[in-house]
Amino acid sequence: MQPRKHQRLYETIFEADTTAGKVFDVALLLLILTSVVALMLESVEEIEQQYGFELRCVEWSLTAIFTLEYLLRLYCVRRPMRYAKSFFGIVDLLAVLPTYLSLLLPTIQSLSVVRIMRIVRVFRVLKLAQFLGEAHILGAALRGSARKIIVFLVGVGSLVIVVGALMYWVEGLENDQFSSIPASVYWAIVTVTTVGYGDIAPESPLGRGLAAVLMIIGYGIFAVPTGIFASELITQPQADVSTQVCPECLKEGHAPKAVHCQHCGAELNPEPPAESS
Amino acid sequence: MQPRKHQRLYETIFEADTTAGKVFDVALLLLILTSVVALMLESVEEIEQQYGFELRCVEWSLTAIFTLEYLLRLYCVRRPMRYAKSFFGIVDLLAVLPTYLSLLLPTIQSLSVVRIMRIVRVFRVLKLAQFLGEAHILGAALRGSARKIIVFLVGVGSLVIVVGALMYWVEGLENDQFSSIPASVYWAIVTVTTVGYGDIAPESPLGRGLAAVLMIIGYGIFAVPTGIFASELITQPQADVSTQVCPECLKEGHAPKAVHCQHCGAELNPEPPAESS
Amino acid sequence: MQPRKHQRLYETIFEADTTAGKVFDVALLLLILTSVVALMLESVEEIEQQYGFELRCVEWSLTAIFTLEYLLRLYCVRRPMRYAKSFFGIVDLLAVLPTYLSLLLPTIQSLSVVRIMRIVRVFRVLKLAQFLGEAHILGAALRGSARKIIVFLVGVGSLVIVVGALMYWVEGLENDQFSSIPASVYWAIVTVTTVGYGDIAPESPLGRGLAAVLMIIGYGIFAVPTGIFASELITQPQADVSTQVCPECLKEGHAPKAVHCQHCGAELNPEPPAESS
Amino acid sequence: MQPRKHQRLYETIFEADTTAGKVFDVALLLLILTSVVALMLESVEEIEQQYGFELRCVEWSLTAIFTLEYLLRLYCVRRPMRYAKSFFGIVDLLAVLPTYLSLLLPTIQSLSVVRIMRIVRVFRVLKLAQFLGEAHILGAALRGSARKIIVFLVGVGSLVIVVGALMYWVEGLENDQFSSIPASVYWAIVTVTTVGYGDIAPESPLGRGLAAVLMIIGYGIFAVPTGIFASELITQPQADVSTQVCPECLKEGHAPKAVHCQHCGAELNPEPPAESS
Repeated sequence: MQPRKHQRLYETIFEADTTAGKVFDVALLLLILTSVVALMLESVEEIEQQYGFELRCVEWSLTAIFTLEYLLRLYCVRRPMRYAKSFFGIVDLLAVLPTYLSLLLPTIQSLSVVRIMRIVRVFRVLKLAQFLGEAHILGAALRGSARKIIVFLVGVGSLVIVVGALMYWVEGLENDQFSSIPASVYWAIVTVTTVGYGDIAPESPLGRGLAAVLMIIGYGIFAVPTGIFASELITQPQADVSTQVCPECLKEGHAPKAVHCQHCGAELNPEPPAESS
Repeated sequence: MQPRKHQRLYETIFEADTTAGKVFDVALLLLILTSVVALMLESVEEIEQQYGFELRCVEWSLTAIFTLEYLLRLYCVRRPMRYAKSFFGIVDLLAVLPTYLSLLLPTIQSLSVVRIMRIVRVFRVLKLAQFLGEAHILGAALRGSARKIIVFLVGVGSLVIVVGALMYWVEGLENDQFSSIPASVYWAIVTVTTVGYGDIAPESPLGRGLAAVLMIIGYGIFAVPTGIFASELITQPQADVSTQVCPECLKEGHAPKAVHCQHCGAELNPEPPAESS
Repeated sequence: MQPRKHQRLYETIFEADTTAGKVFDVALLLLILTSVVALMLESVEEIEQQYGFELRCVEWSLTAIFTLEYLLRLYCVRRPMRYAKSFFGIVDLLAVLPTYLSLLLPTIQSLSVVRIMRIVRVFRVLKLAQFLGEAHILGAALRGSARKIIVFLVGVGSLVIVVGALMYWVEGLENDQFSSIPASVYWAIVTVTTVGYGDIAPESPLGRGLAAVLMIIGYGIFAVPTGIFASELITQPQADVSTQVCPECLKEGHAPKAVHCQHCGAELNPEPPAESS
Repeated sequence: MQPRKHQRLYETIFEADTTAGKVFDVALLLLILTSVVALMLESVEEIEQQYGFELRCVEWSLTAIFTLEYLLRLYCVRRPMRYAKSFFGIVDLLAVLPTYLSLLLPTIQSLSVVRIMRIVRVFRVLKLAQFLGEAHILGAALRGSARKIIVFLVGVGSLVIVVGALMYWVEGLENDQFSSIPASVYWAIVTVTTVGYGDIAPESPLGRGLAAVLMIIGYGIFAVPTGIFASELITQPQADVSTQVCPECLKEGHAPKAVHCQHCGAELNPEPPAESS
């Protein structure tokens, strides 16, 4: 086994099998949520006018913490460039960059730029992706049924286009809301997915009859993806997954007793002995 | 086996395996429903003005009955304090307390206090929780898939924030309803869950296209919790559960032939011999 | 085996395993549908004014046919009174009675009576119940999960009452649509079932937050009945069912090779030899 | 094995197990999508006025390509008439015919004819049906549960007619939206499928109560088709299907190692040796 500097820090930051690692994970989760809520509130005009200063304090404090987290990750990982280029590395960098960039922009910004900056910063929520380790099983079930789901989507897509075109013909001349095929197809999607805003709705008896048929079809074919996914989940063996992260390629999803990474073959961290809390 | 006073009363009130116990359960269920309906009707102004007196009679009669039930439970259980501090004990107390408290308040109350008193009394519906014994199996299936469901919720949460932020950018400048990110995220939740009120709806072609994508994703990922839960229910052995309640710790969910409580080890009531009805 | 008069007629009318029986069934199905559509169209004012006479002709012709069918059933069944008192016998009688009763009413009727007569006649659609033989399997699965479903309904009922009461408090003072607890509970039902009319919708930030939580809960607990029902259907053996109807007690659902009725023990009709069509 | 001319072309166009065949399939998929999108955009007035010429260029180029594809299919298939009369042959012909027909029509067309031509050309989307090979498994599961689904639809149909008729009685006199039974039944379908446009909604307390009951029933019976379909998918063996198409009868869905067509017995194309890409 190779010696590795900063291993304790590595385990705390990247893994979740020590007490410190779990505390770090929960704290990071709460900080991300706080930060995203603060950024979302900033876009509400009344809140921005009343609490703008406080929100900016929160924003800068959390950006500082996330910057520190990013630098620590770079510092304790064995191959910093590989981390920096990985999906999680890019997300961690993009979570802090926009806030610093906003300093470079002139103070008086156009409304449109302000909006874009806000949206880009809210995308910080993607840092949550690192907590989706359990999604391996869901992902495998989705991949297993991917072809069936694509076939299903092609089928639903053809259905909404055909029904949308028919509605354009049936309702179009009298009902302004169905004045083009794309609008009718949008209505068909709103209906077949049972969302039903009601901003576009058929008014003629024939249109309503067609809509009723579409609703019942939509109601029935709902069963298809659910059945596909449930049968995939049931027939698939559900393996446990450890909290280890490969120090070389930073991938997760290893078996509980795995010693080498299943993706690149590098040696994994040994499971720590049980700590006294 | 220890002698126990009031055992007959205990079996009638706490368990459901004697004729008297079943009658008690059904009667209690009907009284709770009557009481909640009466309290709900009281908040409708026209009904309150016309039948206010009758509703108050019903309210006081039922409160008296529930008080009697609470006192009987305290009287016949072996350790009254343990019952009083248990979840069901607190719910039973809170079901009657607000009605008595309303006597202490000055006659002329502000509208806001009246409202709160009404709501607190409606929470009496939580007494129904004691009829959810069968929920043990559902609860076990939910716990078994809890981690998958949390991952799913984190995923859906990230999705609605990202899509909400994009809609704030796409629709925000022209459509007043998307004037802040929280409003856009609210719209995204209304859409992805297929509720679709229609009070907020996209109007630009780009916004509608984005909405259509979100609807189809929402339609598809609906399959995920259903598949998780169905597979959990199918792969899990479904044990029968007796109607016995541990006289010590008041917990349910014992196996049909259990002699000792599986939670605290105390001796359970023996199953009564079949009664002649 | 007992001799039985009218056996050929009996097989045609009550069973579906001869060519004549199948033709009779399909013809009856089409006549019921035609009749219900005609009765529904009669309630549309413009159609009634323009085609009132034609619709009344259809109505009287089909009533005559259904009367003949009822009399033939009475004639060829071994115990007419038992048929007349069975569920299907009552439905068959009620399908024709209102039309004859309308002759007795004075010609100039109040609008309210006309409405009720129309509705009662539309209930003729219940004659379709006799085609639901296949529902035996679904019914068994529903019965098998009945207790779980009741628990589920009690849980959803408590949820909508608690959330409705909270919304009455949060939104009620400012939003007229939440002015009483029953209205708020109605809104909660509309939301949790993802129907989402939009006639009642929260407007305050707190109310919208609460609504969002309710939607996501509703989205998630949708998985519960589906999972229950799917697991019940999967774990249950699916037996074939013959088209035989017991000539004594008129019950269906016999095994393909059954010789005696499983409900009353009477001898069943033998399966007819394969006919040349 | 019989010699066959144009076999290479046949494999490219009709099958998907060679590199050329896959490239052809993906290219065709993209061209169909492009063409349908262009036709849909043509119906939006502003886009038609600004980009009408470009859209017509795209339309004519793609029609030329689809015509070429159709002719090539006729040329390389062993029995052209059988292909021309098959479902896919008719769809391929109908995908190009309307565009040529539009040349024969007088230049100044009535709006109604323009609309119909647009709709007919959009039906070109049905060419996508040839990519639904994977649907064999879904189709088998649907067929397996067809009788249960018909029973379910008859049940839902009766439910919405009965509830619609009741609502016509309860709401009809005061609420213009429920002024006829067909309108009430349309509302019941919109509600039971959880679409919930909100263009028709009950207003009286009794009507709302009835609506709430219908919603909860709709919410619950949603579980039925899903459960049926999931159990059918789970209990059914899922066979792999090759990409071979029978050169005689043009049917798909053969087993991976099949040598003869399972529908007509003709010899299938041998699987090609692995190509170097």
